[in-house]
Amino acid sequence: MYDDILLPVAPGSAANDAVPHARSLAERYDATVHVVSAVDTLEHTLSGPRVASLADRVEAGAERRVETVTTELEEAGIDVVGNVIHGDPLQVIKNAIEDTGADIVVMPTHTRTGLQRVLLGSVTEKIVRVSPVPVVTVPMADRET
Amino acid sequence: MYDDILLPVAPGSAANDAVPHARSLAERYDATVHVVSAVDTLEHTLSGPRVASLADRVEAGAERRVETVTTELEEAGIDVVGNVIHGDPLQVIKNAIEDTGADIVVMPTHTRTGLQRVLLGSVTEKIVRVSPVPVVTVPMADRET
Repeated sequence: MYDDILLPVAPGSAANDAVPHARSLAERYDATVHVVSAVDTLEHTLSGPRVASLADRVEAGAERRVETVTTELEEAGIDVVGNVIHGDPLQVIKNAIEDTGADIVVMPTHTRTGLQRVLLGSVTEKIVRVSPVPVVTVPMADRET
Repeated sequence: MYDDILLPVAPGSAANDAVPHARSLAERYDATVHVVSAVDTLEHTLSGPRVASLADRVEAGAERRVETVTTELEEAGIDVVGNVIHGDPLQVIKNAIEDTGADIVVMPTHTRTGLQRVLLGSVTEKIVRVSPVPVVTVPMADRET
């Protein structure tokens, strides 16, 4: 039923409780995990050296995060593909569902850090509404804090 | 990772694309499926013979639905428990997560019929926000119609 699992991750090193669920599903269904991080650099609306510098940092953060998660899954024996894609997170994830042929998406309802917590949760709610495939929404273990 | 799966179903005979996903997860994880249908009869706010008659019909519909789904899962060799519970659907599902010790909830984002489509989708979005365990949101196959 699930051959391809999409696992969107936020740039940076924030904990993401969705990873163990994607891993478990991949193990049980012998599926490939597609890790994707969206880099929304705002380069289309802003410009200047500060924006370029911020964009570089966000992109580096996204690459580190994808690298960390793919390595963790690979070491567990999971087939995994990692990608950093520029664009609005909602659109990047929608496209990735189609491009990867994902049968299911696994996403946190929020991350442990402040602003990302709000942003990723909001993206998850929107993905739930528009996704043509099931979405596993994973709450943080310490969600009441 | 998933020993107990909560599968909320709406009263009536509306198709529910979440059932095959709950079944598949139960098979892969050797889990028990807890089927629950909430009957919100409004008896606490309204009264009179018409309300009582409506309440009876809704309850009968919920019992039929739970019976249909539990039978389908049992015939597939799944351990299954069915319950009809009176109360507000959001509260009934929140309580059922706790009472069943569910590790995961599987719910449709909407059903194929008009009003229930709106209501159940709305409940699913709220459950995603408050659930302490992962929620698998399942879109309808013909969701674009």
